[in-house]
Amino acid sequence: MNVAIVGAAGYGGLQLVNLLKGNKNYNISFLGGDKNAGRKWNDIFPFISIKNDPYIEKISIEEISEKCDIALLSLPSGISSTITPHLIERGIRIIDLSADYRYKSLDKWKEIYSKESSIYKRNDYKLCSEAVYGITELFDKEITKAKIVACPGCYPTSALIPLAPFLSQGIIENEGIIIDSKSGLSGGGRNPKEDLLFSEASEGIKAYGLINHRHISEMEQILGFVSGDKIQLQFTPHLVPVVRGMFTTIYGRLKDPGLTADDCKILLDNFYRNYTNIKILPVGVYPSTKWTRNTNDIYISINVDRRNGRIIFLSTLDNLLKGQAGQAVQNLNLISGQSAHNGLDLINFYP
Amino acid sequence: MNVAIVGAAGYGGLQLVNLLKGNKNYNISFLGGDKNAGRKWNDIFPFISIKNDPYIEKISIEEISEKCDIALLSLPSGISSTITPHLIERGIRIIDLSADYRYKSLDKWKEIYSKESSIYKRNDYKLCSEAVYGITELFDKEITKAKIVACPGCYPTSALIPLAPFLSQGIIENEGIIIDSKSGLSGGGRNPKEDLLFSEASEGIKAYGLINHRHISEMEQILGFVSGDKIQLQFTPHLVPVVRGMFTTIYGRLKDPGLTADDCKILLDNFYRNYTNIKILPVGVYPSTKWTRNTNDIYISINVDRRNGRIIFLSTLDNLLKGQAGQAVQNLNLISGQSAHNGLDLINFYP
Amino acid sequence: MNVAIVGAAGYGGLQLVNLLKGNKNYNISFLGGDKNAGRKWNDIFPFISIKNDPYIEKISIEEISEKCDIALLSLPSGISSTITPHLIERGIRIIDLSADYRYKSLDKWKEIYSKESSIYKRNDYKLCSEAVYGITELFDKEITKAKIVACPGCYPTSALIPLAPFLSQGIIENEGIIIDSKSGLSGGGRNPKEDLLFSEASEGIKAYGLINHRHISEMEQILGFVSGDKIQLQFTPHLVPVVRGMFTTIYGRLKDPGLTADDCKILLDNFYRNYTNIKILPVGVYPSTKWTRNTNDIYISINVDRRNGRIIFLSTLDNLLKGQAGQAVQNLNLISGQSAHNGLDLINFYP
Amino acid sequence: MNVAIVGAAGYGGLQLVNLLKGNKNYNISFLGGDKNAGRKWNDIFPFISIKNDPYIEKISIEEISEKCDIALLSLPSGISSTITPHLIERGIRIIDLSADYRYKSLDKWKEIYSKESSIYKRNDYKLCSEAVYGITELFDKEITKAKIVACPGCYPTSALIPLAPFLSQGIIENEGIIIDSKSGLSGGGRNPKEDLLFSEASEGIKAYGLINHRHISEMEQILGFVSGDKIQLQFTPHLVPVVRGMFTTIYGRLKDPGLTADDCKILLDNFYRNYTNIKILPVGVYPSTKWTRNTNDIYISINVDRRNGRIIFLSTLDNLLKGQAGQAVQNLNLISGQSAHNGLDLINFYP
Repeated sequence: MNVAIVGAAGYGGLQLVNLLKGNKNYNISFLGGDKNAGRKWNDIFPFISIKNDPYIEKISIEEISEKCDIALLSLPSGISSTITPHLIERGIRIIDLSADYRYKSLDKWKEIYSKESSIYKRNDYKLCSEAVYGITELFDKEITKAKIVACPGCYPTSALIPLAPFLSQGIIENEGIIIDSKSGLSGGGRNPKEDLLFSEASEGIKAYGLINHRHISEMEQILGFVSGDKIQLQFTPHLVPVVRGMFTTIYGRLKDPGLTADDCKILLDNFYRNYTNIKILPVGVYPSTKWTRNTNDIYISINVDRRNGRIIFLSTLDNLLKGQAGQAVQNLNLISGQSAHNGLDLINFYP
Repeated sequence: MNVAIVGAAGYGGLQLVNLLKGNKNYNISFLGGDKNAGRKWNDIFPFISIKNDPYIEKISIEEISEKCDIALLSLPSGISSTITPHLIERGIRIIDLSADYRYKSLDKWKEIYSKESSIYKRNDYKLCSEAVYGITELFDKEITKAKIVACPGCYPTSALIPLAPFLSQGIIENEGIIIDSKSGLSGGGRNPKEDLLFSEASEGIKAYGLINHRHISEMEQILGFVSGDKIQLQFTPHLVPVVRGMFTTIYGRLKDPGLTADDCKILLDNFYRNYTNIKILPVGVYPSTKWTRNTNDIYISINVDRRNGRIIFLSTLDNLLKGQAGQAVQNLNLISGQSAHNGLDLINFYP
Repeated sequence: MNVAIVGAAGYGGLQLVNLLKGNKNYNISFLGGDKNAGRKWNDIFPFISIKNDPYIEKISIEEISEKCDIALLSLPSGISSTITPHLIERGIRIIDLSADYRYKSLDKWKEIYSKESSIYKRNDYKLCSEAVYGITELFDKEITKAKIVACPGCYPTSALIPLAPFLSQGIIENEGIIIDSKSGLSGGGRNPKEDLLFSEASEGIKAYGLINHRHISEMEQILGFVSGDKIQLQFTPHLVPVVRGMFTTIYGRLKDPGLTADDCKILLDNFYRNYTNIKILPVGVYPSTKWTRNTNDIYISINVDRRNGRIIFLSTLDNLLKGQAGQAVQNLNLISGQSAHNGLDLINFYP
Repeated sequence: MNVAIVGAAGYGGLQLVNLLKGNKNYNISFLGGDKNAGRKWNDIFPFISIKNDPYIEKISIEEISEKCDIALLSLPSGISSTITPHLIERGIRIIDLSADYRYKSLDKWKEIYSKESSIYKRNDYKLCSEAVYGITELFDKEITKAKIVACPGCYPTSALIPLAPFLSQGIIENEGIIIDSKSGLSGGGRNPKEDLLFSEASEGIKAYGLINHRHISEMEQILGFVSGDKIQLQFTPHLVPVVRGMFTTIYGRLKDPGLTADDCKILLDNFYRNYTNIKILPVGVYPSTKWTRNTNDIYISINVDRRNGRIIFLSTLDNLLKGQAGQAVQNLNLISGQSAHNGLDLINFYP
């Protein structure tokens, strides 16, 4: 299987390279990235070797469609939509890590990504409606057959995996769900910005995007779909000074306040029994993001306040792997007829 | 005014030393700490000078009552209650930084601090009921006259200051309040523990004490008091790898969903208009814990989800100052007839 | 005394603001910075208050010379030389934090700062030769009378203060001196650069500028001057993931191998006996940069290998204070007829 | 090949587990550790899975010699010597990660490790003289046949690999070599100590063990051996706030000042041409410890001051892998007849 990695020098692209370069099922036949085009890989990353030290190439629809079967796109929002339709036309399947195909409705995308939609004039309504949302463990059947998989980012992944089973089975109230996420700084990417500087970010904790963060509508779409109902969420992203890691704390209310934390744990165990990378912890054991570094695992812990039936979920993952490149490779595996976790049995980087 | 600092070599005690050693209104006449008793201050802290380099002394009721007018106790829970009654008897006023006098009911304390209560056999019901809870900005009048001020820790301070005005005035629902806190590691103290090691804590985010953290009942007591109603809270403390800083995100629901974030900001402005260290930010400006380092300030920002009347509070403070020693000095000032913020106009340590 | 702070929104400028805004001897009458000109101070730094919330103004020779007696220039290399001659002409005294006046010989500057010299065409030979190198404790008499004080950066300060006494008195060999420095990242400033990103810099240690770092010639000039001889140094700067702090390890060889570490400590004690901010530690006590945060102190420790007469110096300081703004304020004090450490008796930010 | 990992719950032991658990050439048949004996692995490390979740067992010579062919000992200094002679007697080969067999002369060990030698009464002179020092790339032939391999720690590894070729070939002076090392904190282990706390160590840089650190005599022994001469070193270890990583800066003097940095690079290239994990960088490219995380690689860069023939080496490695467990596995491979880097082709954890 020949794959293109487009946007290879960003943090997401780099992880894709690392995950695929030693995987015998795949051959990286195109490494694209406009900013670094024309440079040898090793000149940019002397500490990450790729066989034959390839050039990073200018993004070219022709080159990609000649050399590849599948393209993994790790590009800023909006740009993916300028090449995806052309690649699809040429029979290339797409795994997109941007937000461009996460909404079934292109109009919704235009509303939420208004700045991007004013730059990139899109009309690919049909592709949007056909794209499959790429949480492997929720939509594996659809992903297997998808032309486009729209991978969610780290925030939605960390919230949707614990919530979906409960909302799809009507166990928690649709109302009043609160998602409080804490993210490491690599989520902000490699482009220099003042607030990502070590001197600014270290020893600081802060929130941003209250009330109207873009991921809110994305998660509401998916949870609306799985619950069959309209869902309104509170979601507050925070930045904390770790490089890699996402910790999400979710608050909800059980419809049946008689359910115990153990009941809820069993429900999750069953729901995800085919996915060993979803690790449901015993009640009272709480994970750290440190457990997930360099892995494609997500750890989930549940507790219930017996006084009032409120439920708390904790979920942790490595934002660049299960939250980004690892999930993309799971989807690549499904599309290629491999088992989902092929090549993703990684060893935790600890301490 | 002669003051004793007991537990001077811990992180809280150290801040007390730093805040008081240059303050002309106070004279540190006793530095106590059993672990380091008999050592010269400068041998332990060559980088923090105190005039005449005093000895750290063994904790002694006689010595303290001879030399001091007020004692600031920065001791582990339970120990304070072994000396406070004796000091009170001798006319010494007490500012206690532990949990020993935070509950009006000693029985409640025994329930929550069951381990400590099995070690330290207490019977000082009356002192508990007389002690004043030490959030300066909420209970200033009572503190001025108090024999014992029971200072809250950083978590309750960060949550109660934003919430109290809204609950006392019945603006938000008593039901369903969620407090999600992120704490720096200095809150765990200077005693070596595995999970506070740099190698364990750095690059990690985790939660602990879900559902039944001790501070829940403490906050429920105070909010019950200010609201005149029974309050049940969700509270989840998290550890993030910063040394100093506390960030608390609070979720509630407005009774009147027509209120805007600006309305709520004005309400807070008015409530705390006499306290310049409570800084209410313009709507849409969100603080970082980095803003608060080395200060006694608390920053608060409010936003409202107009779709459903949900309100979000963000609050940040330096856990060792406004969350601990700074608040104690505010209370010391009130007790001594000074204005509350005397000697606390500190300069932010940035970046 | 009316002072201008030019380049006020950089890390160095900010410290100057913090140090001077509460100092009764000085009045900040001009805050300059082209990038942020026209903005209110509080809009940029909501967490650092200045009375009356002034505007940051465009750098203007007229405005500065009308409103100020002294200008503190915290600007990138080269730019200072475009305004300093005009300000001097108008009778304004200059404390320059850049490299522009650190060399007695403008030609040497042109050689070392070749890039800057191709942009900024300079001809101010005389000013260069008149400028006084601003290590307060070495050149206090000259600084008192100086029109221009050229403050050294953090690296030279950390190396020259321990070395100068030994080279001026001929106690160590001129040959084979090695300076190995470890710097925090705030030394790289607030402008976003990839290698200063949290994700890039944290959990990394690296060296740069081997053999030909610009500070080598600067230190060789000063040590040549104090020793009366030609000095060639090895100097290797390293970046480590702390925000503030500089640690310099210096290796030399005693001419008289019979000297002990205690002898050398006494020599330093005597040399700097008038400067309480230079803290010479007992032999065997080694400092941490953590001791110096938020202070204008430099800690020095010495040890000697009795086998062969090799001497090791350790020195630590806060790179933004004693290594930058604090030293500038010392010089401002001398110029203004104050005692050097006026307003600089700061409290360590620990832990 | 059945291997025992003794001291499995420490940082070194953990890495051994991670490296060997998926390696088909080895079977971990004994996991030992007195402190955690009797506990299931997964109860201690829920985030590191080992097939069948074994128990950690009490250290037992019988059990080890029954179940294993080779024992990897990751124990505090002194303890290894209490079990090694018994295991050797029973035909078990030993890879020891402690200092117990690093000196050819047991008397030298007793002098340097005087505290340990007063607790553990040793008389195994012969074993000491037979043990092979475990820098794979220098002593591969001897290691292949060794009964005991005494693995060096991270400091000596980082210094000896770059220095040995130059001293063995007489290219640099024996005199005046200076080794200035910067270490991450995981080198201090998992046992809680005050100075390893996050609040104490973060944002700090410090030195320790000046003049008489134990590794000095160890490195002098090896460099004396390779040079055939008596060598006296200066060595200064520093602690910097990274978890994993070691950076060593070495200063020497070329006998022939006409040699260029490129000449020296070529010499190193040749010397280590069979070892792809020793990565000699082009002149002017300087490594970061960040490049080495999660790998068994060591990066070396060389520069020469043409003014005076002084040479500077930079070397970086992951202190827990190439500096500890990775090197042990290289030696294990040699002993087992595998190629040295088998199972060690790891992917860098970046960023």
